[in-house]
Amino acid sequence: MTASVLVRQGELRTEQRPVPTPGPGDVLVRITSVGVCGSDTHYFTEGRIGPYVVDAPLVLGHEPAGVIVALGDGVKDRTLGQRVSLEPGIPDPRSKQTLAGCYNLDPGVRFFATPPIDGVFSEYAVHPAAFCHPVPDSVSDDAAALLEPLSVALAARAAGKIQIGDAVLVAGAGPIGLLIANVAQLAGAIVTLTDVRAERLTVAQKYGAAHTFTAGEPPPVEPEFDVFIDASGSERAILGGLARLAPRGHCVLVGMGADTISLPVPLVQGRELVITGTFRYANTWPTAIALAASGQIDLDGLVTSTHGLDDVEAALKAGTNPGALKAVVRP
Amino acid sequence: MTASVLVRQGELRTEQRPVPTPGPGDVLVRITSVGVCGSDTHYFTEGRIGPYVVDAPLVLGHEPAGVIVALGDGVKDRTLGQRVSLEPGIPDPRSKQTLAGCYNLDPGVRFFATPPIDGVFSEYAVHPAAFCHPVPDSVSDDAAALLEPLSVALAARAAGKIQIGDAVLVAGAGPIGLLIANVAQLAGAIVTLTDVRAERLTVAQKYGAAHTFTAGEPPPVEPEFDVFIDASGSERAILGGLARLAPRGHCVLVGMGADTISLPVPLVQGRELVITGTFRYANTWPTAIALAASGQIDLDGLVTSTHGLDDVEAALKAGTNPGALKAVVRP
Amino acid sequence: MTASVLVRQGELRTEQRPVPTPGPGDVLVRITSVGVCGSDTHYFTEGRIGPYVVDAPLVLGHEPAGVIVALGDGVKDRTLGQRVSLEPGIPDPRSKQTLAGCYNLDPGVRFFATPPIDGVFSEYAVHPAAFCHPVPDSVSDDAAALLEPLSVALAARAAGKIQIGDAVLVAGAGPIGLLIANVAQLAGAIVTLTDVRAERLTVAQKYGAAHTFTAGEPPPVEPEFDVFIDASGSERAILGGLARLAPRGHCVLVGMGADTISLPVPLVQGRELVITGTFRYANTWPTAIALAASGQIDLDGLVTSTHGLDDVEAALKAGTNPGALKAVVRP
Amino acid sequence: MTASVLVRQGELRTEQRPVPTPGPGDVLVRITSVGVCGSDTHYFTEGRIGPYVVDAPLVLGHEPAGVIVALGDGVKDRTLGQRVSLEPGIPDPRSKQTLAGCYNLDPGVRFFATPPIDGVFSEYAVHPAAFCHPVPDSVSDDAAALLEPLSVALAARAAGKIQIGDAVLVAGAGPIGLLIANVAQLAGAIVTLTDVRAERLTVAQKYGAAHTFTAGEPPPVEPEFDVFIDASGSERAILGGLARLAPRGHCVLVGMGADTISLPVPLVQGRELVITGTFRYANTWPTAIALAASGQIDLDGLVTSTHGLDDVEAALKAGTNPGALKAVVRP
Repeated sequence: MTASVLVRQGELRTEQRPVPTPGPGDVLVRITSVGVCGSDTHYFTEGRIGPYVVDAPLVLGHEPAGVIVALGDGVKDRTLGQRVSLEPGIPDPRSKQTLAGCYNLDPGVRFFATPPIDGVFSEYAVHPAAFCHPVPDSVSDDAAALLEPLSVALAARAAGKIQIGDAVLVAGAGPIGLLIANVAQLAGAIVTLTDVRAERLTVAQKYGAAHTFTAGEPPPVEPEFDVFIDASGSERAILGGLARLAPRGHCVLVGMGADTISLPVPLVQGRELVITGTFRYANTWPTAIALAASGQIDLDGLVTSTHGLDDVEAALKAGTNPGALKAVVRP
Repeated sequence: MTASVLVRQGELRTEQRPVPTPGPGDVLVRITSVGVCGSDTHYFTEGRIGPYVVDAPLVLGHEPAGVIVALGDGVKDRTLGQRVSLEPGIPDPRSKQTLAGCYNLDPGVRFFATPPIDGVFSEYAVHPAAFCHPVPDSVSDDAAALLEPLSVALAARAAGKIQIGDAVLVAGAGPIGLLIANVAQLAGAIVTLTDVRAERLTVAQKYGAAHTFTAGEPPPVEPEFDVFIDASGSERAILGGLARLAPRGHCVLVGMGADTISLPVPLVQGRELVITGTFRYANTWPTAIALAASGQIDLDGLVTSTHGLDDVEAALKAGTNPGALKAVVRP
Repeated sequence: MTASVLVRQGELRTEQRPVPTPGPGDVLVRITSVGVCGSDTHYFTEGRIGPYVVDAPLVLGHEPAGVIVALGDGVKDRTLGQRVSLEPGIPDPRSKQTLAGCYNLDPGVRFFATPPIDGVFSEYAVHPAAFCHPVPDSVSDDAAALLEPLSVALAARAAGKIQIGDAVLVAGAGPIGLLIANVAQLAGAIVTLTDVRAERLTVAQKYGAAHTFTAGEPPPVEPEFDVFIDASGSERAILGGLARLAPRGHCVLVGMGADTISLPVPLVQGRELVITGTFRYANTWPTAIALAASGQIDLDGLVTSTHGLDDVEAALKAGTNPGALKAVVRP
Repeated sequence: MTASVLVRQGELRTEQRPVPTPGPGDVLVRITSVGVCGSDTHYFTEGRIGPYVVDAPLVLGHEPAGVIVALGDGVKDRTLGQRVSLEPGIPDPRSKQTLAGCYNLDPGVRFFATPPIDGVFSEYAVHPAAFCHPVPDSVSDDAAALLEPLSVALAARAAGKIQIGDAVLVAGAGPIGLLIANVAQLAGAIVTLTDVRAERLTVAQKYGAAHTFTAGEPPPVEPEFDVFIDASGSERAILGGLARLAPRGHCVLVGMGADTISLPVPLVQGRELVITGTFRYANTWPTAIALAASGQIDLDGLVTSTHGLDDVEAALKAGTNPGALKAVVRP
């Protein structure tokens, strides 16, 4: 099979590799679409993300959808030809964190495209059947791939404990920020979306934002927000959002960027704010599928470019194009 | 009546003032004991705490106990001669925050010894009957006063969601840190207490700590804690505590001191830590009374000096004495 | 002013009474619309509800909207001419339950049209300003009145902890059941609505139901529900709903009717079901107003008949008309 | 090896069976102590529990402790000679409930001594290493076995959301009721224990009860309880406990017995009570071990008779002896 391999920082190569064989409980999936994430681009341009270093050839890509083409031993609840969305992390089933229901925090989790685990910019992949979630025909291949970023948004909503009627501020109008806005709105919140770049706010309304404002300007409404979710990774955005939270307000740090922020302790104490962050997601696919299948969230509308396996470099660089939201690779 | 008045920064004066008259729903209390808090000392030495400035004479003291000597109109569930502990904040009963159950966060709350509201370093005070909590004879006058810092500890436990079996780290072995350790232990936690000054840890065991260590040294046990509560206000202590939290661990910022801390965002995200702070307390007195009355917490053991109304300056400065924990003023 | 008075069981009389005067913190409201509730009808036909007996003349009606025409002393945040929705219960501001945030459970609450407290089938009423919630012009008088049943629905959603993606079953397609369905859908749930009378399900889709089925028939989808809310008061409906709950599923008993139900203990244990009930509501008006103002819930569409003060008997009996949902009295 | 086998209802036989071989991830344990549970006795005397029928020979016993004597492939974090407490249920690691953190509710769970899965009244057993929890020397073999009923108590506390300061009522002073009382007290609650048999209350104080009363008499204190936990299975006890709950009070149904109870709906609604039940436990062993190891709970004190493998019938019948609390089988 063909795979696009990051040989070293900045250098991709298309290789031929053997099609893998599914073990017990696994399925073999022919990959149909893979979303490109900022972390893929980061590995390509920097060769590392924090402690994770690309010191051996690595296949990138961790937002895959595909079709089941072979079943491993013991797989009973999947069928050949079934269209699936792959949840990319495989936790140790007996770890403390897995047994406690937060398998995303299992330190032993094996996650696509995180050194030394290969990702899915390739024609085929083997994966546990339980993490290959069947999708109905109303969910396209690209949308099935983008259930992964939608899961990030669902985890952010849960972490922020967003309820019907909440006034929610979301900072950052990239794909994740837009999906968070959309999920919050579908959960009954009144959403305000902000970004430093005014042009990114043009699609805000389509993704659930009732109000928008450009960073640096005052918000148009809501003197106080119940929940603030940062999808920008910017310290300035985070501190601005915290300052606008009501007593007992919740702040969720989703965006990556700032290594540290200068947290105002008296503000946190005086309003008893609650600050947390999210790391991927757990148990989100059923809801993600339901939202996509019902048409309540337009995942296909996020796709601004498509690429083949021999065009992965362009896919990884597409994020800087004006108006770009999400690139997908279709092997 | 006699009152000790902070005329201006650093200058106390004993004055004669008229005994106040209780309004409807209020009682008149003869004050028997008042705990001295770090904030009282801060107003005395600095003349302000953040935005609260002593620009007019102010009576300090906000941890009072006393005896009811007169009843205002309509007070039915209190009696003359009843010994009470005074909960010092009076919220607006119809504010949004009060109706939501967090009356401590009502921006209109009137709180003893917070400019321009006088405190209780005086012979008498008027207060709403509902916030004058009767105490049984097994609770001494000093202990009744110290239900206020015990309430701070109870609020910290609630904010940290401490449960039976949790491994809890408390930083700062002053009166608040000791009470937090004690409350956590009584809630079933295994408590480790740390302080920069080794000598402050000598009473740790009496106040519920199973383990202690001096800041800078490694903790004796527990590679990971479920909950970290800071009662030191030190950025170094806070960052050290955060680094020792398990996935989904809770951090509660109680101590005042650091204006900002340099929060490590990837740590908060990677472990999905939850960080919050507390501002005073709400609905804590019933439990505080039960704990003190049963003898499970030795509040009297915290008292290291007692003072009259003409000796308030010594009381305010007592915190710097070696071995000092808590000074009380007995009008 | 004119008031419609229930002189005794089954007998209404239109009387002239003096317009009341607002006390401190109160406002005088000219009533524009009052929703008719099943409890009003029950007092009329039975003369009592459980322990509450109509043993003296009583004005019924507890879902009022109106216009502020006079301000009591100290009222600062309301203005003459302001259109308001009246939250009907006045809790003791210093009770344990009020201070804990569940003022609806304060045993001392004074509630419109609950003996011996008069209701609002009258031209004017005095009420605390804090419980007279201003509504924007996009909310009609009738809709402002019907924020009360909408609040019942919001309380049910909160009690059931309905989240985005939940499969929710609602039993009973009267006004409360429809509003619960609508609120659940707006909170992101997939709602199935059931009723014994098939014709009541014809408006189900308009009020948020994705699926419907007539009681006794199998549900069309969802082998298991995350949440079941009973708005029927029927034991059969409740037991049917419980049996369809997934592990850790939530059941909320809202409907009145059954005095006891025969609860299957092994089912509750084996699936660790959580069963609760709601009593009115607390802190719901801000969200209710937001939902009505945005047009997300069509409260006016529930109104199937309107009546004057001299026509209250017809209003109380309107519930039995075919197709009737909600009667309102417009004084 | 020797095993005690229930050949059919009422008939036990001691058999020789081959020592099992541990598979990958498993360990072989030499059993040192097994607690006898009411369900073991029920299978012996009735031949079934609800849908679970003994229609083939079955080894009873599901509360085992032992010593690891062999390791299966891939077991790294256990050692030969290690003393362990066996958590008896093995869930499907990829089921929806397991991934959500409630593996006890996984319908595919394999549980000792539940037909057709053999239990541990035998000399050896094979079990997954992850569910064989190492215990320190301060925990005896019998105590290691009784971590299972202690886990039932910990699950009850969690389900009742018992917090420090809560007034808790426990009905039923058998081993489970006593352990619930003890756990609640160690979590900071003030516990009242009740039973129909006054003599069972004699050990109540040792197991954390501050107050006791014989069923049918009024409770000595606390007009209202925050939490009620039933460990009796008696409808009368359950209804009595419900009636004594404060607004928003929690009721947890742990005891088995009543198939249905006549639940008073207006009571549940009027006080917004929360009723739930527990099914076994999840993630409780670490806390159970900590409590037993610290000496805070005297599990050995519950053991009132010990038996060999050839004496299992006496062990199963010991519960009816006067003063009997817990029998253990020591193979």
